[in-house]
Amino acid sequence: MTDFQNWMFSIQSRMELVLDKLLPPAHIAPQRLHQAMRYAVLGGGKRVRALLTHAAGEMCGASPQKLEFAAAAVELIHAYSLVHDDMPCMDDDDLRRGKPSCHKQYDDATALLVGDALQSLAFQSLAQPDVYTNAARQLEMVNLLAIASGSRGMAGGQAIDLASIGQNLNQAELEYMHIQKTGALIRAATLIGAYCTDEGEVGAGLSIDRTQAIDRYAQCIGLAFQVVDDILDIEAETATLGKTAGKDAQSNKPTYVTILGLSRAKQLAVELYENAVEPLSAYSSEATRLIQLATFITQRNF
Amino acid sequence: MTDFQNWMFSIQSRMELVLDKLLPPAHIAPQRLHQAMRYAVLGGGKRVRALLTHAAGEMCGASPQKLEFAAAAVELIHAYSLVHDDMPCMDDDDLRRGKPSCHKQYDDATALLVGDALQSLAFQSLAQPDVYTNAARQLEMVNLLAIASGSRGMAGGQAIDLASIGQNLNQAELEYMHIQKTGALIRAATLIGAYCTDEGEVGAGLSIDRTQAIDRYAQCIGLAFQVVDDILDIEAETATLGKTAGKDAQSNKPTYVTILGLSRAKQLAVELYENAVEPLSAYSSEATRLIQLATFITQRNF
Repeated sequence: MTDFQNWMFSIQSRMELVLDKLLPPAHIAPQRLHQAMRYAVLGGGKRVRALLTHAAGEMCGASPQKLEFAAAAVELIHAYSLVHDDMPCMDDDDLRRGKPSCHKQYDDATALLVGDALQSLAFQSLAQPDVYTNAARQLEMVNLLAIASGSRGMAGGQAIDLASIGQNLNQAELEYMHIQKTGALIRAATLIGAYCTDEGEVGAGLSIDRTQAIDRYAQCIGLAFQVVDDILDIEAETATLGKTAGKDAQSNKPTYVTILGLSRAKQLAVELYENAVEPLSAYSSEATRLIQLATFITQRNF
Repeated sequence: MTDFQNWMFSIQSRMELVLDKLLPPAHIAPQRLHQAMRYAVLGGGKRVRALLTHAAGEMCGASPQKLEFAAAAVELIHAYSLVHDDMPCMDDDDLRRGKPSCHKQYDDATALLVGDALQSLAFQSLAQPDVYTNAARQLEMVNLLAIASGSRGMAGGQAIDLASIGQNLNQAELEYMHIQKTGALIRAATLIGAYCTDEGEVGAGLSIDRTQAIDRYAQCIGLAFQVVDDILDIEAETATLGKTAGKDAQSNKPTYVTILGLSRAKQLAVELYENAVEPLSAYSSEATRLIQLATFITQRNF
């Protein structure tokens, strides 16, 4: 394994342990709900958002323990959104991470409550006492995650996505939707990692310039993530993807590929990669993980 | 109007304004989602939880501005839970607060996203900067609300409720369900009001004794609330109730009335009222609003 793969694997393994510990045990009542929450969160996913939290945090000298709870909060929000998005009244998808989606494995009512309870657990993880020394900064993180998840972030983007089915969007409208639907949480995941730095801690700290560079990176990589998603929806196999391939095309959803064509969509992903890493060039080795992650995200096949 | 009615009316009016301001305007994209969020929250409800937040806060000398944002957070959690509970895969109820429930007025996907986004907005309201001076205390409030909303609180109670349909529960099992489903949020609403007191502020402050008395009150009044709910489900008219009367009985749900009978259920409500106000007797006039609210909650007809 390369050094980057080692880093990624060690964070993915740690996140599995942290999430396992945060989630209520399956034998505690209500058992079925807790089993379903664990089913929806554990044992799958590349934890891209958690990796972004860690990479941004490492660039700013944040400690691993703080990053773990923050990253877990973001992953719990992401997991809840997948459970709700897959439900029959939304995208109606039977497959997620190579397994039956939560409402197929359990039932619709349980899936609804799983999503609701995972969102609460995310804020519980981020607001817990005794981990962070700067309570005001921690509140900013809660606030940032709440805004990124809400009606002007992820949930709002999903509403626009549903309304866009069968519509002819232009690139600007599509971009606006994705900035909310996927971009807001990816941006929050990255910024929250940077916010985990406490003043006075050993490390590079959190200057305005540094925050702006990370924010610019996060916004570009959020869009790049979605462009690659749209390319994979066309090019990848369901087995590799772990969710139903060709789903967007079938359901007549506008995507970067339908609007730009495959070749221009691929070119856009490259441009977004370049725009993401450019502001980090001033930070040399401190930004290594963020740059490696940008490569990983834009060249992935899942 | 009595002095209590005046107090209640003025808080209900203020809460309507605070919630109106917290909710995104209906003309901002995604418009349909924002319209539906406003539909689900504004113009209805007795704001019992907000009243509890204010009454407990007043007992501890908290300032109205702090109480408003905290009370709004609790009301947003409550409103989201009603939207999701009414959905077809849950209680499947067409009527709420005398109007079509959210998924009937809009659609299932919108109602799902409305609930999700209201939950995020609740945490945004509670985590906002510049209102509270004690960030660590504010984080405790976020943590308390998150736990009360999650799988070991409200969402967990709803899961047990769904699993209990057609089952023969005893009183202890029924109580366990309601402590989670309704009690947890009522308890959090009350405690959060007390937590709004800052150290050093003018007022009675937040001693351990006082917190324990308020907590005991909140736990008893949470159960009393549910016992009265079950009585009203039998005795009230749909028009007065603003939701479908007789629904629990029809759907074969165990209630205090089915388990204890009407007369013993009424006796239990009286006992819970007495247990709620007893620990407040040491605080004389400071606890007036909490005591008046206990009367109001146990003698209500809606």
